[in-house]
Amino acid sequence: MAGYDWITFTSDYGLEDHFVGVCHGVMARVAPGARVLDVTHAVAAQDVRQGALLLAQAVPFLPRAVHLAVVDPGVGTGRGTVAVQAGGQVLVGPDNGLLLWAAEALGGVDRAVALENPAYRLEPVSWTFHGRDVFAPAAAHVAAGTDVGELGPEVDPGRLVRLERAAARVDEGKASAAVVAVDHFGNLALGLRREDLERAGLAVGDQVEVRAAGRAHRAAVGETFASVAAGELVVHEDSFGSLAVAVNRGRAADRLGARAGDPVEILRAPGGA
Amino acid sequence: MAGYDWITFTSDYGLEDHFVGVCHGVMARVAPGARVLDVTHAVAAQDVRQGALLLAQAVPFLPRAVHLAVVDPGVGTGRGTVAVQAGGQVLVGPDNGLLLWAAEALGGVDRAVALENPAYRLEPVSWTFHGRDVFAPAAAHVAAGTDVGELGPEVDPGRLVRLERAAARVDEGKASAAVVAVDHFGNLALGLRREDLERAGLAVGDQVEVRAAGRAHRAAVGETFASVAAGELVVHEDSFGSLAVAVNRGRAADRLGARAGDPVEILRAPGGA
Amino acid sequence: MAGYDWITFTSDYGLEDHFVGVCHGVMARVAPGARVLDVTHAVAAQDVRQGALLLAQAVPFLPRAVHLAVVDPGVGTGRGTVAVQAGGQVLVGPDNGLLLWAAEALGGVDRAVALENPAYRLEPVSWTFHGRDVFAPAAAHVAAGTDVGELGPEVDPGRLVRLERAAARVDEGKASAAVVAVDHFGNLALGLRREDLERAGLAVGDQVEVRAAGRAHRAAVGETFASVAAGELVVHEDSFGSLAVAVNRGRAADRLGARAGDPVEILRAPGGA
Repeated sequence: MAGYDWITFTSDYGLEDHFVGVCHGVMARVAPGARVLDVTHAVAAQDVRQGALLLAQAVPFLPRAVHLAVVDPGVGTGRGTVAVQAGGQVLVGPDNGLLLWAAEALGGVDRAVALENPAYRLEPVSWTFHGRDVFAPAAAHVAAGTDVGELGPEVDPGRLVRLERAAARVDEGKASAAVVAVDHFGNLALGLRREDLERAGLAVGDQVEVRAAGRAHRAAVGETFASVAAGELVVHEDSFGSLAVAVNRGRAADRLGARAGDPVEILRAPGGA
Repeated sequence: MAGYDWITFTSDYGLEDHFVGVCHGVMARVAPGARVLDVTHAVAAQDVRQGALLLAQAVPFLPRAVHLAVVDPGVGTGRGTVAVQAGGQVLVGPDNGLLLWAAEALGGVDRAVALENPAYRLEPVSWTFHGRDVFAPAAAHVAAGTDVGELGPEVDPGRLVRLERAAARVDEGKASAAVVAVDHFGNLALGLRREDLERAGLAVGDQVEVRAAGRAHRAAVGETFASVAAGELVVHEDSFGSLAVAVNRGRAADRLGARAGDPVEILRAPGGA
Repeated sequence: MAGYDWITFTSDYGLEDHFVGVCHGVMARVAPGARVLDVTHAVAAQDVRQGALLLAQAVPFLPRAVHLAVVDPGVGTGRGTVAVQAGGQVLVGPDNGLLLWAAEALGGVDRAVALENPAYRLEPVSWTFHGRDVFAPAAAHVAAGTDVGELGPEVDPGRLVRLERAAARVDEGKASAAVVAVDHFGNLALGLRREDLERAGLAVGDQVEVRAAGRAHRAAVGETFASVAAGELVVHEDSFGSLAVAVNRGRAADRLGARAGDPVEILRAPGGA
């Protein structure tokens, strides 16, 4: 009956409706002592991959918690529902890959169960709002001290749905990958790490060409936005360890006309070192 | 002096400004022990009807609370301000119909008072921000243990402003109503219940025609989004009990070109059962 | 070791990403007992002036707190980082003018220190996310009882970066200033106070002309939106004491085609009193 002081909550519900507030309400009724920390509710609608990435990036900075996450295009179909124990914490959500990268960031899956015990659901369960009826109640009951094993039958961790990591390609003088996220400031995070750039023989101070949407743009490899003049492009390691393209005091997404999922290439600039 | 552990907060203030944060601040100063649960602040600007609907749909899932709600196009005019007791809970806001559907969802109005006692307002009361100066202080004082009767003189519950329910029409093979809400996913909730569809002789599995914005669209009556193929239209009972039109993995609002208030007709498909 | 029960949080991070949630997480780990009140996270990207204005307007209504604020276009450059004591409260953020108007609203700067003690940072500090790595940890440590003097060396309050107040000009029958904020409802707050209007010889009830974006519009000076008919323009004192232009039940920003920073003139109407 130890339970958890915190529940974190990540979803694609947006804040235009009462969906998030209603889930908070359900949790407050089940676990009035728990505090709910909203990670974000602006995951792009039904974009499981973006949700998985944001959650995995966030968990190292969050308190010990039950992490509730709902991005669930398969609601009302046969997709599974799970609670996953990882590193002494618990993740609750649909079994569609949303939780596994975060579980790995917490140390890997120790145990998984399907959320099938009606005692920990809001009955009758609706067809379309499992956040309210299945996931929030399960998360809150675990926070209030219910053992994960009470929620339903064990699931083989090896059978949980897993997303493929984005493909990247690194050659001498060239690194290619998709945009994995565009943030509020228009910065483009790529499916590359700093090591990939090093493997391509590129380093801070180098001039590069960034190709996106059929066009080439001049950029520099730098430590931060301010490594280049205002309005210029910089390729840098962002604060979550992804290689990113930014415009100092501007919006790279607008400059490059690139969105999540689009391919981007970084090449040694012609005539560069 | 029992008070309430929770205050819920619903408004059309949006999150672009400090309006919501300032109201939280006012409540924290008056009732530091209360916890505030935000239902939504994205009610369409001055859309009392939408606010009333969202609040009434939400309260069954919220903890026992003082429910603060502010959608207040008449601020600074002679419109009344009220605290309403219903089912052992309290609703606070303008007397413009915003609170009554929720009060009914909680069991009906037991008592109402006008918020006229200056001791529970922030003086001088501004002309345009009664959320901060009148409603949030009143809600917080009640949460902190002040009896509702202290807030001002009794108001006859029968004289509270009441919104008309949206008109709907049901005939054999046909049901018509307005769109009452468009959610974050583009789903259209109609002013109809499942029973209305049954009264029209339509049932799960039937093929129907959905008419909106001068065009007819083929759809199926189903249990959920996934009752139809991706990209197809489904008419189903949503998670709050409204009949709704959705596109599986798409946006019905875009497909139909329909917005809140627009009329929609559902008819048995030509050649259908 | 007194500490603070509350941390307030104002930023330009938006809610589309996990930035705000991650900062909440960092604070929850350092100061699990503190409660975080979000003022707004929708300050326009990198608009230090707007952030400073919103924070200064909000603090009189907020509880005694550590006020964390991050609008930081200079992140990763040599700009300073500070904690400022003012009126028994603490402000934490970049030294770019963001905090000083709020400090003045709290009674003036009593003491300032630079956030240079690595014991109160998240090491290694990233180049681009000092909200997470520098400011949130500092705010949380102060809330948890760390003395401000522990965070780093003293800074001369007279050397803190200070924003100029917006220029305004008042003549007989005429007041001119820039738009300092456009709110969720499209109301335009100007860099003028009610006294400025009085100095121009204009008073409630007068007919005026509002000039913006090269066009003149008829308006009345009034107490509130409802001082004019629906759809008409009113010049009034808003709820934070700024002179503002509004359209009763409409959006002045759309009507005037004006945005933050744009010049606006208010003149006695030709033929007016």
